[in-house]
Amino acid sequence: MDYEAFFQTELDVLREDGRYRVFAELERKAGAFPHATCFNHEGVDKVTVWCSNDYLGMGQHPAVLSAMHETLDRCGAGAGGTRNISGTTHAHVELERELADLHGKESALLFTSGYVSNWAALSTLAARIPGCIVLSDALNHASMIEGIRHSRAECHRFAHNDPEDLDRRLSAMDPDRPKLVVFESVYSMDGDIAPIEEILDVCERHGAMSYIDEVHGVGLYGPRGGGVAEARGLMDRITVIEGTLGKAFGVMGGYIAGSAAVCDFVRSFASGFIFTTALPPALAAGAAASIRHLKTSQVERERHQERVAYVRRRLDAIGIPTIENPSHIIPVMVGDAKKCKRISDWLMEHHGIYVQPINYPTVPVGTERLRLTPSPVHSDDDIDRLVRGLSEIWSMCELARREMAA
Amino acid sequence: MDYEAFFQTELDVLREDGRYRVFAELERKAGAFPHATCFNHEGVDKVTVWCSNDYLGMGQHPAVLSAMHETLDRCGAGAGGTRNISGTTHAHVELERELADLHGKESALLFTSGYVSNWAALSTLAARIPGCIVLSDALNHASMIEGIRHSRAECHRFAHNDPEDLDRRLSAMDPDRPKLVVFESVYSMDGDIAPIEEILDVCERHGAMSYIDEVHGVGLYGPRGGGVAEARGLMDRITVIEGTLGKAFGVMGGYIAGSAAVCDFVRSFASGFIFTTALPPALAAGAAASIRHLKTSQVERERHQERVAYVRRRLDAIGIPTIENPSHIIPVMVGDAKKCKRISDWLMEHHGIYVQPINYPTVPVGTERLRLTPSPVHSDDDIDRLVRGLSEIWSMCELARREMAA
Ligand SMILES: Cc1ncc(COP(=O)(O)O)c(C=O)c1O
Ligand SMILES: Cc1ncc(COP(=O)(O)O)c(C=O)c1O
Repeated sequence: MDYEAFFQTELDVLREDGRYRVFAELERKAGAFPHATCFNHEGVDKVTVWCSNDYLGMGQHPAVLSAMHETLDRCGAGAGGTRNISGTTHAHVELERELADLHGKESALLFTSGYVSNWAALSTLAARIPGCIVLSDALNHASMIEGIRHSRAECHRFAHNDPEDLDRRLSAMDPDRPKLVVFESVYSMDGDIAPIEEILDVCERHGAMSYIDEVHGVGLYGPRGGGVAEARGLMDRITVIEGTLGKAFGVMGGYIAGSAAVCDFVRSFASGFIFTTALPPALAAGAAASIRHLKTSQVERERHQERVAYVRRRLDAIGIPTIENPSHIIPVMVGDAKKCKRISDWLMEHHGIYVQPINYPTVPVGTERLRLTPSPVHSDDDIDRLVRGLSEIWSMCELARREMAA
Repeated sequence: MDYEAFFQTELDVLREDGRYRVFAELERKAGAFPHATCFNHEGVDKVTVWCSNDYLGMGQHPAVLSAMHETLDRCGAGAGGTRNISGTTHAHVELERELADLHGKESALLFTSGYVSNWAALSTLAARIPGCIVLSDALNHASMIEGIRHSRAECHRFAHNDPEDLDRRLSAMDPDRPKLVVFESVYSMDGDIAPIEEILDVCERHGAMSYIDEVHGVGLYGPRGGGVAEARGLMDRITVIEGTLGKAFGVMGGYIAGSAAVCDFVRSFASGFIFTTALPPALAAGAAASIRHLKTSQVERERHQERVAYVRRRLDAIGIPTIENPSHIIPVMVGDAKKCKRISDWLMEHHGIYVQPINYPTVPVGTERLRLTPSPVHSDDDIDRLVRGLSEIWSMCELARREMAA
């Protein structure tokens, strides 16, 4: 077999479908977010980033940076080992305490990323609890799907955000089998939010464990940034809360929070936790500083919501088609992979606006989009330029607008 | 089902077997490696770390730290997105170039860890190459086993480091099926090194791709730190070389290096690459600085080998039983989980020597050990204290010694 030819052919298929991905090569400027330098677009130098998941700009916050500098000087660059073999530092233990407190749980457990936390925790729980049945929301993130798949446990998908469908499915199952219901709070591509309370009602009625991914909620919602479940007063009813340190908290890493026993169980059995070098202590310290700041400061969350609402109003006023949702994510719908990429390239080249086209497999074919993430660091001027750019390209390409807001 | 009770029971089993893991809570002192503060051992404050995988102490190297400080100031804390959605920075692209050059390959692809690089690359290659058969060394690391398992491809284990067994197995297979041979260079628990050339001969004879994990080789072997395959002049015959940035390079992250097509293929299809926040730019810059330094500097590698040989000589002289091997890893054999933990605790409490007991599932039951990793930053005095401590506890516990060196 000619392996090289096989790889090339597969890549050619992606190119023909307009799904071949070209990464923008950027360098954000700390202190000047959302502005960045772009290295790989001819004639484009300065850009405004409109699709970052550093939702609050915490990646440039002085408290975060100084904690990282200080820890780097004190402890060095890497952890130097797995958590079990010399890689657990004081900074990791403190961060785990901070996270347990954030979610009002007994314990928390750190992973190298949100992806790994979902994959490792779900594959371990679903595989090791004898006879476990997993009920997984139909739109769950890849990291959860892969974790469940890896466990080889029996898995049923329930209709997206549909507690009644979940209830029907659970009712048809052996009441004595252990069950794990897995869902997200904010779904990051459509920006819709789960009916968490109704899902928990169903879980409790059927004696199922609940596992929520708050990756797009933590830091952003709730009086202390505990996520949507905190905002709705539901954290104590959830078995496992999973989150990331790489989005609103602005650093990198992932975690679960739950009872001491469930965290210790995953700690003791999860391959993806055990057999990998721990996060650098400086990242742990930076994430802890970010969490600590957002536990008391409301200005970032308030300004975030205000900016999102303002961008939405401006786009509505000129009829740019978006998905309505109650979250901070504004999906601008295009519906075609090649067109989406051309629009994105044009915005970059003519307006220095960087918004990555989102295509399959991240979203279903036919729902390709530009996913905007306004943040507290986007100024009125940034927003004016975004709206002008979108308006121009919508007219030029004769793209459909929806009925204008009155 | 009472989930909490189930978790507790499973943890109790670990405790009874002496396999329950207690992590040492440390803080290494940059500039004073291998010395660290210990936070969770009563009466123990200052310790000497004897089991770090920051093999060369690069985690405290000024070039690494200054690259990280500088990038942190310039670009902020996190990448703020997945590689595709705003998370590719100039630092990532430069690091991938550095890695491709290190291994003499067209391309390299970064992952968040060595674990994720193995898991994501192997699960993608084995699942996506139609009809692929995987041949996996019997002692491969968990990250490779899980990646292969995830792919659901047909997999055969060949006898550890045994090219003849590999040859026999390949000979019995359909010559037209694509095949992937997966192995390591340095096996980290026994410290033995693969017969890479013989394995490649077999691969080539049967038209199989070769995939080598050089996690415990990169930085340490070869004139530019390209690993054992570089030292033996074999890099160009290997399809995919995988490595970590978290051990000898002292930071965090993982990668593969290979042809442009194979890297682009994994980049385009691997869930574990696509759906996760990119490494912080400061980590990428720190790792690049470390690699760059070790491409030209030999002192670290030379002193490393000298220290390892010296520790070995000293242990041999007093008959401490170790596994012979040609690498930098010195496994001191104990063979019992509880005893191993007691020895480790005693060394910590009485001598401030930290060496984690290694037990199942990291090594087979009955081969529990203390895994020593001497480094260029261990002084003669550190070594004297280690040897004294081991000698004392070996006498006290009447542990078997082997025949003394003459
Ligand atoms: C819903 C969801 N869960 C988990 C992850 C993974 O988190 P991380 O980026 O920290 O790996 C992501 C995105 O990256 C996500 O969107
Ligand atoms: C052979 C081997 N491969 C891969 C890994 C994973 O690398 P990382 O620690 O960067 O996740 C390890 C250890 O951690 C290892 O020993």
